Amino acid sequence: MRTELQARLAEIPLIDHHVHGPLKDHVSRAEFELLITESDRPVPAWMTQFDSQVGFAVRRHCAPVLGLPPHASPEEYWATRSGLEPGELTRRLLAASRTRRWLVETGYAGERIAGLSEFGELVEGRVDEVVRLESVLESVARGCTADGLVAAFRDELQRRARDAVGLKSIVAYRHGFDFDPEPPSRGDVLRAAERWLRTVDAGAEPRVDDIVLLRMLLREGVSTGLPLQLHAGYGDPDVELHRCDPLLLTRWLKAIEGSGTDVLLLHCYPFHRNAGYLAQAFPHVYFDVGLAINYTGARSAAVVAESLELAPFAKLLYSSDAWGPPELHHLGAVLWRRGMALAMAEWVDEGEWSLEEAVRVATLIGRENAARVYGLDDD
Amino acid sequence: MRTELQARLAEIPLIDHHVHGPLKDHVSRAEFELLITESDRPVPAWMTQFDSQVGFAVRRHCAPVLGLPPHASPEEYWATRSGLEPGELTRRLLAASRTRRWLVETGYAGERIAGLSEFGELVEGRVDEVVRLESVLESVARGCTADGLVAAFRDELQRRARDAVGLKSIVAYRHGFDFDPEPPSRGDVLRAAERWLRTVDAGAEPRVDDIVLLRMLLREGVSTGLPLQLHAGYGDPDVELHRCDPLLLTRWLKAIEGSGTDVLLLHCYPFHRNAGYLAQAFPHVYFDVGLAINYTGARSAAVVAESLELAPFAKLLYSSDAWGPPELHHLGAVLWRRGMALAMAEWVDEGEWSLEEAVRVATLIGRENAARVYGLDDD
Amino acid sequence: MRTELQARLAEIPLIDHHVHGPLKDHVSRAEFELLITESDRPVPAWMTQFDSQVGFAVRRHCAPVLGLPPHASPEEYWATRSGLEPGELTRRLLAASRTRRWLVETGYAGERIAGLSEFGELVEGRVDEVVRLESVLESVARGCTADGLVAAFRDELQRRARDAVGLKSIVAYRHGFDFDPEPPSRGDVLRAAERWLRTVDAGAEPRVDDIVLLRMLLREGVSTGLPLQLHAGYGDPDVELHRCDPLLLTRWLKAIEGSGTDVLLLHCYPFHRNAGYLAQAFPHVYFDVGLAINYTGARSAAVVAESLELAPFAKLLYSSDAWGPPELHHLGAVLWRRGMALAMAEWVDEGEWSLEEAVRVATLIGRENAARVYGLDDD
Repeated sequence: MRTELQARLAEIPLIDHHVHGPLKDHVSRAEFELLITESDRPVPAWMTQFDSQVGFAVRRHCAPVLGLPPHASPEEYWATRSGLEPGELTRRLLAASRTRRWLVETGYAGERIAGLSEFGELVEGRVDEVVRLESVLESVARGCTADGLVAAFRDELQRRARDAVGLKSIVAYRHGFDFDPEPPSRGDVLRAAERWLRTVDAGAEPRVDDIVLLRMLLREGVSTGLPLQLHAGYGDPDVELHRCDPLLLTRWLKAIEGSGTDVLLLHCYPFHRNAGYLAQAFPHVYFDVGLAINYTGARSAAVVAESLELAPFAKLLYSSDAWGPPELHHLGAVLWRRGMALAMAEWVDEGEWSLEEAVRVATLIGRENAARVYGLDDD
Repeated sequence: MRTELQARLAEIPLIDHHVHGPLKDHVSRAEFELLITESDRPVPAWMTQFDSQVGFAVRRHCAPVLGLPPHASPEEYWATRSGLEPGELTRRLLAASRTRRWLVETGYAGERIAGLSEFGELVEGRVDEVVRLESVLESVARGCTADGLVAAFRDELQRRARDAVGLKSIVAYRHGFDFDPEPPSRGDVLRAAERWLRTVDAGAEPRVDDIVLLRMLLREGVSTGLPLQLHAGYGDPDVELHRCDPLLLTRWLKAIEGSGTDVLLLHCYPFHRNAGYLAQAFPHVYFDVGLAINYTGARSAAVVAESLELAPFAKLLYSSDAWGPPELHHLGAVLWRRGMALAMAEWVDEGEWSLEEAVRVATLIGRENAARVYGLDDD
Repeated sequence: MRTELQARLAEIPLIDHHVHGPLKDHVSRAEFELLITESDRPVPAWMTQFDSQVGFAVRRHCAPVLGLPPHASPEEYWATRSGLEPGELTRRLLAASRTRRWLVETGYAGERIAGLSEFGELVEGRVDEVVRLESVLESVARGCTADGLVAAFRDELQRRARDAVGLKSIVAYRHGFDFDPEPPSRGDVLRAAERWLRTVDAGAEPRVDDIVLLRMLLREGVSTGLPLQLHAGYGDPDVELHRCDPLLLTRWLKAIEGSGTDVLLLHCYPFHRNAGYLAQAFPHVYFDVGLAINYTGARSAAVVAESLELAPFAKLLYSSDAWGPPELHHLGAVLWRRGMALAMAEWVDEGEWSLEEAVRVATLIGRENAARVYGLDDD
């Protein structure tokens, strides 16, 4: 049954509802190893990042796309990969993922990766933009007055969001979810803006981590009515992971419930069961296990299975959260399909589920829920 | 081995140590869908609650009890179900569960569901009552003085508990477990009673959510010596789930350890491993994964397996926590038996456990522990 | 594949990087039952601690070492065990574990268990010492002035650590991880020392649970450069488990990151996924699932599998955390080998991993990582 189910799931034209651009240029092996971990610390000399679940998954699933046998050694893999022109490498891996549509979050370290239009040229499928709220605010900070900051942000957000399908907040990284669920007062925002802009005027790189300003961004984002993605759970060492448990959002989720805005909790690991509870309790809450799929490699089947507990099947989505190495764009899709197939094949074999229902649920999660939430009518 | 073990486990006459009454009347499909989720929000038009683990489990395991094939469509299922008289439907599903004894918690929305004696007439097995502390207090509030509240509560509790086998607290719903573990002072209770009764006198529906009064209820409940059930973990959107981690009870559990009263942590998902730790550490602590079994459907086998880690086998119990649709009364039993069989069959196949020991452990958890804790000498 | 992998893993000469001495003398069955649970409460009359995962594992895996069939009854097991001279029993079980090297933490209840040299005589492999910081401080407290406490501690630590391979802190037991990540000031330490020594001078058994002194110990321990073990997660009822989530150490881990000292998080259950995140994020952080392996018995395979997610394979270690009954020294090794084999055999069968890579990863975790971190050049 597993084989048949895997074959059926391989055909689903995925919508990757949260992804970033692939690398534009060659990278060194040391750079590559830093791009297949969420750590931002140099990889110590006594280890290689290939010795990890994601490293093993690269060798298993990406090596064949490059014409190598599965489990090629890191050295063989690196030699072959280095011989390929970056665009060619990316095209191959992205095509192999059989992802039809990519919702691309453009707010992080954009200079090293393909922009939206470049991304579009690398794939047969379509690309759409998801705009990061913090980046928009940071882009208007220089030269702005505290008084004018919110208006300048709104103008820029309106401009940026015109063709976007969704918004994203990284309040999890910049503060954590332990914040006052009510929107901030005008006075509080003004004072926070003054403090922040003073540091910007003094020459600091604009980086918003004041929780009052971050809450203002959430309020503004919610008011657009666009689907709002929130990083939750696992990420780089900037997060204080226990402060990124989506349960800490409970009061905020209730506070915005009447707005009509959908909230999409991204990754959520190791709190994905908590996210499943929120997705059952609240009609406007969705989640995925995005980033955690790639980084748990062979174990991602367990993580995917755990995501299939409390949430109604209309409330789960697929994303790779790939950034940089196109291996990650491919792996996200391969491992998600594998995880879904392994979990559901067991249920089908046992008679708990029927095969057709399993394929239908995978199609909901792999594309149809995203099409509905983001209003991708043409997909 | 799985087959043999399943056959053996199917014969265990279960004690469902925490359950509510089945529905008395016909419900519409929309009402039914609201009763197979812990969400209290209307089911959005773009989804059906049948598309969930519990929805799939209903179609898989309840359809055959109604004479339909497994995996009957929601429409077929609904048509057949609607054609059955509610009492007949309930009788069939409850009988199919092979539950011999039901410990019925009577404190929630009693008007829609069968009362204790009606429940008793629907089943061959015996029913006993578990009394909800908060409901007792709320039932005496009207017309009570602050001075007289505790005494009035004690009198009523004594009356209500005369034939009861246990008590229940929903402090998790009304406040969370982050409370002062010491019992409240007389003065604190008096002041809290004054505040609360003022709102009741002003016409508010009596609903106790003041933590001082809730702590008074716990103190009074513990002092009866009856086994005390506590909702923990997953429930409806009233809970703030992160405040319902049973570990937050650690100090309170130590504070009441000398009382001789047993504490039964209900559901506990997704904190059931934490509950397992408490059940190992403290002789007076027990737990189940109740509600989580039904709502995780095919995945409940994993939840049941996770409950079989730290707790000694004398410290786990079975419950369905069914309320309303009799499908839930049946499913709890079916899925618990299935989960136990799947977990243990693996160990028996591998030679880690013997078959007879597996059956013995399932019998402990499925009935004998409950018989001992609640003093069901006649069972 | 499982069989072949199990055979290969059985050959790995383990380094048990966190273990305590085996019992010196005969114990009664009641004492034994108290030593195979983390609870320190008497085992109630209505249960036996043999009815638990660890109890079943003893009968399954230790009975054959004593010449009994697997699943021997507790009574048979006890009769045979009691007939063996303690040293002989210990020698057999420790030899059966195929552990080559033992890093022995000597700080707890040393009078009942074999000391370092006695331990060395019981095994073919080598033993090394891990020194518990709190014990060192407590050993110098009597007669010490507040002014002289830190210096006296340093002298004693230097003496004790001369031949030690690592240090250990039990701040998790004595306070929890919710402490100020910065080292305490000189004045704060002085005041805390005064308070503490006053109770010692008044005749109290020296037991350090003042968080300022505990933070001083961490600072001193880190400054030695020796690998520092931290109890994390599951343990006896002294812990408040929710305060022992290693994520609460995030800021402290960042604060000491520049010191060059490695931190080894022990056990971590049920927060082992959180530990895996820390081990990926921070080059100086390692972890194991030690104690949780024995106490989850047949389920430990799931716990081991869950530990193989985010952490690079160079960042995981093996330990038994056995204390007392030599059954635990054996079981730790048996169950860890079994858990690794079960998890990886699935991946090898599926083609996700190669057999040789699986053996290599198990060897890293089972011994090579420990040899590197502790500088066991001769191993």
